[in-house]
Amino acid sequence: MKLRVGIFGGSGYGGAELLRLLLLHSAVEIALVTANEHAGKAVSEVHRNLYGLTELRFTRVPEDLEALELDCLFLALPHGQALEVVPRVPAGLKVIDLSGDFRLSDQGAFERHYGREHTAMQEQAEFVYGLTETNREAIKGARRVANPGCFATATLLGLAPLVANNFLSGRVVVDAKTGSSGSGAKPAANTHHPQRMNSFYAYKPFTHQHVPEIEQELRSVGDWTSELVFMTHSLPVARGIFATIYAETRDARSESQIRALYQDYYQDSFFVRLVKGSPDINWVKTTNFCDIGFAARERQLVIFSAIDNLVKGAAGQAVQNMNLMFGFDEKMGLILTGSNP
Amino acid sequence: MKLRVGIFGGSGYGGAELLRLLLLHSAVEIALVTANEHAGKAVSEVHRNLYGLTELRFTRVPEDLEALELDCLFLALPHGQALEVVPRVPAGLKVIDLSGDFRLSDQGAFERHYGREHTAMQEQAEFVYGLTETNREAIKGARRVANPGCFATATLLGLAPLVANNFLSGRVVVDAKTGSSGSGAKPAANTHHPQRMNSFYAYKPFTHQHVPEIEQELRSVGDWTSELVFMTHSLPVARGIFATIYAETRDARSESQIRALYQDYYQDSFFVRLVKGSPDINWVKTTNFCDIGFAARERQLVIFSAIDNLVKGAAGQAVQNMNLMFGFDEKMGLILTGSNP
Amino acid sequence: MKLRVGIFGGSGYGGAELLRLLLLHSAVEIALVTANEHAGKAVSEVHRNLYGLTELRFTRVPEDLEALELDCLFLALPHGQALEVVPRVPAGLKVIDLSGDFRLSDQGAFERHYGREHTAMQEQAEFVYGLTETNREAIKGARRVANPGCFATATLLGLAPLVANNFLSGRVVVDAKTGSSGSGAKPAANTHHPQRMNSFYAYKPFTHQHVPEIEQELRSVGDWTSELVFMTHSLPVARGIFATIYAETRDARSESQIRALYQDYYQDSFFVRLVKGSPDINWVKTTNFCDIGFAARERQLVIFSAIDNLVKGAAGQAVQNMNLMFGFDEKMGLILTGSNP
Amino acid sequence: MKLRVGIFGGSGYGGAELLRLLLLHSAVEIALVTANEHAGKAVSEVHRNLYGLTELRFTRVPEDLEALELDCLFLALPHGQALEVVPRVPAGLKVIDLSGDFRLSDQGAFERHYGREHTAMQEQAEFVYGLTETNREAIKGARRVANPGCFATATLLGLAPLVANNFLSGRVVVDAKTGSSGSGAKPAANTHHPQRMNSFYAYKPFTHQHVPEIEQELRSVGDWTSELVFMTHSLPVARGIFATIYAETRDARSESQIRALYQDYYQDSFFVRLVKGSPDINWVKTTNFCDIGFAARERQLVIFSAIDNLVKGAAGQAVQNMNLMFGFDEKMGLILTGSNP
Repeated sequence: MKLRVGIFGGSGYGGAELLRLLLLHSAVEIALVTANEHAGKAVSEVHRNLYGLTELRFTRVPEDLEALELDCLFLALPHGQALEVVPRVPAGLKVIDLSGDFRLSDQGAFERHYGREHTAMQEQAEFVYGLTETNREAIKGARRVANPGCFATATLLGLAPLVANNFLSGRVVVDAKTGSSGSGAKPAANTHHPQRMNSFYAYKPFTHQHVPEIEQELRSVGDWTSELVFMTHSLPVARGIFATIYAETRDARSESQIRALYQDYYQDSFFVRLVKGSPDINWVKTTNFCDIGFAARERQLVIFSAIDNLVKGAAGQAVQNMNLMFGFDEKMGLILTGSNP
Repeated sequence: MKLRVGIFGGSGYGGAELLRLLLLHSAVEIALVTANEHAGKAVSEVHRNLYGLTELRFTRVPEDLEALELDCLFLALPHGQALEVVPRVPAGLKVIDLSGDFRLSDQGAFERHYGREHTAMQEQAEFVYGLTETNREAIKGARRVANPGCFATATLLGLAPLVANNFLSGRVVVDAKTGSSGSGAKPAANTHHPQRMNSFYAYKPFTHQHVPEIEQELRSVGDWTSELVFMTHSLPVARGIFATIYAETRDARSESQIRALYQDYYQDSFFVRLVKGSPDINWVKTTNFCDIGFAARERQLVIFSAIDNLVKGAAGQAVQNMNLMFGFDEKMGLILTGSNP
Repeated sequence: MKLRVGIFGGSGYGGAELLRLLLLHSAVEIALVTANEHAGKAVSEVHRNLYGLTELRFTRVPEDLEALELDCLFLALPHGQALEVVPRVPAGLKVIDLSGDFRLSDQGAFERHYGREHTAMQEQAEFVYGLTETNREAIKGARRVANPGCFATATLLGLAPLVANNFLSGRVVVDAKTGSSGSGAKPAANTHHPQRMNSFYAYKPFTHQHVPEIEQELRSVGDWTSELVFMTHSLPVARGIFATIYAETRDARSESQIRALYQDYYQDSFFVRLVKGSPDINWVKTTNFCDIGFAARERQLVIFSAIDNLVKGAAGQAVQNMNLMFGFDEKMGLILTGSNP
Repeated sequence: MKLRVGIFGGSGYGGAELLRLLLLHSAVEIALVTANEHAGKAVSEVHRNLYGLTELRFTRVPEDLEALELDCLFLALPHGQALEVVPRVPAGLKVIDLSGDFRLSDQGAFERHYGREHTAMQEQAEFVYGLTETNREAIKGARRVANPGCFATATLLGLAPLVANNFLSGRVVVDAKTGSSGSGAKPAANTHHPQRMNSFYAYKPFTHQHVPEIEQELRSVGDWTSELVFMTHSLPVARGIFATIYAETRDARSESQIRALYQDYYQDSFFVRLVKGSPDINWVKTTNFCDIGFAARERQLVIFSAIDNLVKGAAGQAVQNMNLMFGFDEKMGLILTGSNP
């Protein structure tokens, strides 16, 4: 018996990746996928990579969520829409939300960063934050998972072992860069090809909505009291996030000491790969891996963290969480080999 | 005394290039540049490459064109808008139109390919087709110039010597490829960076609006009776057109015979460079050059033609034509060195 | 019991793709992979996408091929090296050669196009040409398969239905474009990033080594007597081949007639997808699909064919052939979903 | 009377840019350009962008430098070669060296970072560091100029006003990113197109050779005592450097206070443009501009600095320095408009 899963919001890049992964997941059957603007159209007409691989068609979001008889519902909707869907979801139907709607337990922080009222804080309280590697046990028992943001994933996986072991002192600077798919499937000025292909620039200084999410989770991982300076930049590639994290350790540490700490922390985490030197987004693209490397000089420590923003930073991690929530091996359907080149 | 020039439609890529070229043209003063949606804004706020180089501001298209006291007016408006402007232009003001509105003398062909009624065929009759290298003398005396399309420029410069000398027999196949700036400055699905950067595809088979333009001009250059198969494709670069032209000569010809023919035909054409082997869009980008190469095998002849779609394919050729219309050296303001890389 | 396969030449891009595909192939165990210059190194040190996914190490090509007890040997060596390996391979060990060494049955054509003597024409006679879709039955029974070239694959799949049904008259022009991975994993002037990223140019006019391969196979598919004009170009993407094929049909044909012909010809060919309008390399990248589209105007017919040069154009087709040679489902291990974007 | 200038090392990208700029410089005549491996070849055969624009041919480095009767000599040689040339240069011939050979006054630092012995420290003492904006007066009177490194230029222009005014406290983190042309014109693994086009990674952590250069000059600009954490990364574009500089001010400062400080410091510096928000490498490519932007939050200050690595980061600044050394307007030949897109 396969799980019956639904995807609300299947036309964006998050939905595209969920479809790509779940179509090949041996324990899953996709029961429905919605996209209001494409309702009635073949999925493979929008995601032409899937042509020949699925007969699925997009539907509208149905009125009666009970009647769908789903086991698991993925929400890959624009920010704000899950706020309206979640209160209508039957209690027995597990939900994984890829948006930012239910990540923050601080209503004020949500409203400041997302610029909208939060109308479902009661439901929010049931959500478990879905950073698999730091929150595995809670996710196993969760009915509701708030899947992390892409920048938050790269940053948190880079910092968690240090914070959990109380290694840090002083402010932490995160210089983060993302590919253009992070801006979504809808054309816009900042993703216009003639501009973007020769472009690199910073945006949203100090104010990115992933900042409160990162700080909230660092406090949950350990005793986080440092100042966080977080800066996002745009890269002229389609996929990938690279975070360069500048920290200071309480005492001088060698790279091999740091590596040992990470090895210990991530010993059961297949998808975190500790690399020599710097990772490269080229080696994680289309995969669920987070590659982490280091450089240390006395108390100065630099951590490099690289993911595919749409996989480990979104749909891949969502499937990883689904696997845990239903008692499957965390890696099921996620052994993706990437490619060279 | 400098020429007073105006640019109508200064916010698109054609306008951007006109500004780039005319700001440094020693015989020209830009008297006004319009962009309705940006009226009042500094030009350098939209074209941030020009920040620090000009104090110009965008205006709306003025009611009274006479009062502007212009010597030359460039129209870089979306297709269809010049149809409305041109009839209002004072007789003494020279006009260079970069759109397709006045290129075709066959009203039916215009209406079929541009999908709109032609409301100014009387004015059209005054326009000289602005392919400088084939039409130089007529341009010198022209009051109205219809600047060629980008694909038409690359194709016509590749074919003109052969047609003028009646070398061809049989159908001609043109496989043409363009960079993303050819789609304009407005974001759209086909120029969305995450898609475009790994993309190559064909579009508008048999029906591209440059086809009647090319055929019209080939008939003017020589005795053109061949069938033309013309196919456009999209390249994942910002700038550049590359046309591969497959022809058959009446008799077997060596590459050096062909080269001699072109050398003769283009002996006074500084901007046509005959190269060894294949040209590369990399070597003409941001310049007004058209690089042409050949390969021949008996009666089979392949001509390669490469331009920058925004320079020789639009604004550069427009300035070249302005130079001729006002008695300047054709090269004035157009000695652009490109760059390596 | 899994098949024991070996890969000779595992460090190039062909080898990289074989590893990516065979590591996840459920009926296969990779017994060894060679790379003389990396002997002793972990495979995942060279193909860093595979880090964490395999413990394989590169070895040298062993002296005693018998002792390996392999079922299937893939040769992904530089052109010319398979000539020396194949005569040493035990009769019972099936071989799939990805190079050009054994594709041509005409020794003179081989020597002209590859610039070397053919020292194993006797062995060549045993090779079956591995274009799966046109040669399926022969491949099923083959001990030796010469895997097609990437350009040849795209071109032949585009032309086969027309030639098999004797639809064509007159010369055929193929304008083919390839991504930079087609030049291999070794850095060279034409793949130097600062140049290549803004580049498009033609190369090897009339003389590409895939020409005799294409002509040989067209003669085997049907009654091919047309002249072939074949031109290769370089695209600024990593992966993908796009062939625009210009043909003339004996009689005027509509697109739907052409489509019906192709549907019939490829009705059992999962990996050939007939698309509306033009295919796009973006939708086949990292997959084994060949996407084909058409445009027709009276007797003029244009066929568009798009593949990933390293998958359907190399390693994917090799695995497809292995599947047939060992009685597996042709699709086994090859249901690759590509990605969007 | 034009200046007679020579270029030693004209085949690399630094030489390519010098040629591009000096060919159009109205006060300059290029008397010779060397490239040992291309001696005898036309410059335009190597730098095909210059085809039709110059008849210059590459020569070998001549024995007798006196006989050349040059006014100014540019050295654009690989690191280490200027060490051998400079001692042979006649005293009256002005030299601008684009390499790192003469930038550091600390012999130990040079030898540690460049991995070679410094054999001309006596000559080094005569060199003025050529960061035009901070060193203008000294450059005017200099006979020998050590042109800054590309990363150093972007970083120093970003930090100079703060250091000169003693605004900073605590460590400074510089996260710097460069395009692929920074690795030179010679193909290498890290600039192999199939890898690089989807790549982003860090390299040379803590040890980049521009670190001592930056620290040396910051000490000359003001009272620099902070710790510098400097990290270099590779971008998948051809041109551009973007430095994100994380600093802390002694007291909380608003963005407008910071902007006023920079406006004052750079009031006579045409090539430094203070932008709103973030600069973008897209807007400085092929120009001599350095675009600087800011974000401030209490004592946290982030400075963004963007240049073209080959122009303001190399050849453009060299010409700017030449202009000063010979009493010309600093901007002469350097009003480059960039392009959009």
